[in-house]
Amino acid sequence: MGVGVGPGDPELLTFKAVKALQKADILCFFSKSGNRSYARDIVAENLPSALIEVPFEYPLTIEINRHHPNYRRIISNFYDIKAEIIAKHLMAGRNVVVLSEGDPLFFGSYMHLHIRLAHRFKTKVIPGITGMSGAWSDVMIPICQGDDILSILPGTLDEITMKKKLFNCEAAVIMKIGNNLYNIRKSLKATGLINKAIYVENATMDKAISKKLIDKIDDIAPYFSIILVPGCKI
Amino acid sequence: MGVGVGPGDPELLTFKAVKALQKADILCFFSKSGNRSYARDIVAENLPSALIEVPFEYPLTIEINRHHPNYRRIISNFYDIKAEIIAKHLMAGRNVVVLSEGDPLFFGSYMHLHIRLAHRFKTKVIPGITGMSGAWSDVMIPICQGDDILSILPGTLDEITMKKKLFNCEAAVIMKIGNNLYNIRKSLKATGLINKAIYVENATMDKAISKKLIDKIDDIAPYFSIILVPGCKI
Repeated sequence: MGVGVGPGDPELLTFKAVKALQKADILCFFSKSGNRSYARDIVAENLPSALIEVPFEYPLTIEINRHHPNYRRIISNFYDIKAEIIAKHLMAGRNVVVLSEGDPLFFGSYMHLHIRLAHRFKTKVIPGITGMSGAWSDVMIPICQGDDILSILPGTLDEITMKKKLFNCEAAVIMKIGNNLYNIRKSLKATGLINKAIYVENATMDKAISKKLIDKIDDIAPYFSIILVPGCKI
Repeated sequence: MGVGVGPGDPELLTFKAVKALQKADILCFFSKSGNRSYARDIVAENLPSALIEVPFEYPLTIEINRHHPNYRRIISNFYDIKAEIIAKHLMAGRNVVVLSEGDPLFFGSYMHLHIRLAHRFKTKVIPGITGMSGAWSDVMIPICQGDDILSILPGTLDEITMKKKLFNCEAAVIMKIGNNLYNIRKSLKATGLINKAIYVENATMDKAISKKLIDKIDDIAPYFSIILVPGCKI
């Protein structure tokens, strides 16, 4: 079962997610190699004591180019192995929960396990609040309304595509910031949207930071920070 | 305070939303004239007994054209009046919660009150699970991954704009279906996306319906139904 745990504030867990956790035998969660799992931190207060925890550490410790020939092979192999670990638990009749920050089927790692297992085992997905909903609620800015079109763009896009997509754009959310902030900023400047852009880091958490992007003086940003370009015509 | 109540299943309420409800003195919610409020139904089991309920019935009983000259005036006047009702409660020191189906700042009516009041009173927004997250979780289809771009399109768009936006589109969500299904279907056919499109009605609720759009034989659909065009390249 894929369970969305929301953007960070444990109070943004749903009753459905917590119920699923309390019935779980096995709890799986992803983390960067050597790092804590954010998703595990979010649910820490809601775990039954007999639960068996199975951390999945990504095999890549540095951000390697997604287009590198080895990238797909390494990551695909990683998901194959983890899916088989889960399959064994499921075959033994155990209830497996895979945590997902935000919402499992919206840019979540969970989906790589899902496509490997859902045709073989009874599966459920519990949606979670996305990071972007957390971000625009924190800064209390309506993101879209009426006939607005909202484009959700990964910050990993190359500059030409990013500019093209931003050009005819009414409202936008840019995700996966990290190392891409310098390029994203350039694209926002070129398309005249830079003054509207809001930068949000660690939305819904105590350590949340938000400011106009033009007021952010450096290009250092966590991968999970978000840029909002509100489009409301209200 | 704007409180998102999610797509329909009461178990998809967050702890934060329920906590806010339990501290509320005044509960406001929108509904079509003469209809029940869906948002009120979702929270029905979680309301404190001393709460004062203030329903806001939309002044328009039929879907009139949004571009009609009177539309903006009537609806704007409606929000002005309701914002003043809330302002009076807030000035008297009462805790006011405005319910929002889905997520308040994502195509929600709440934002019209927010922009009229947030600069005058201490305000908070609690995000909710969107209808689209409910939809893709119900049908368990990954909507986007990796470098996918997701376009969120209101079904109210004119045909030319809709086609243009769908043409270069990787993944799409079409919201606000209702009377627009015939035109949406035409645009999806023209752009070759019709076979990928999934129709979802009443996501996360007992009465949920989902099917391939090509298997839906009529063009009758509730306004809040959703069409998913998954874009995953995984």
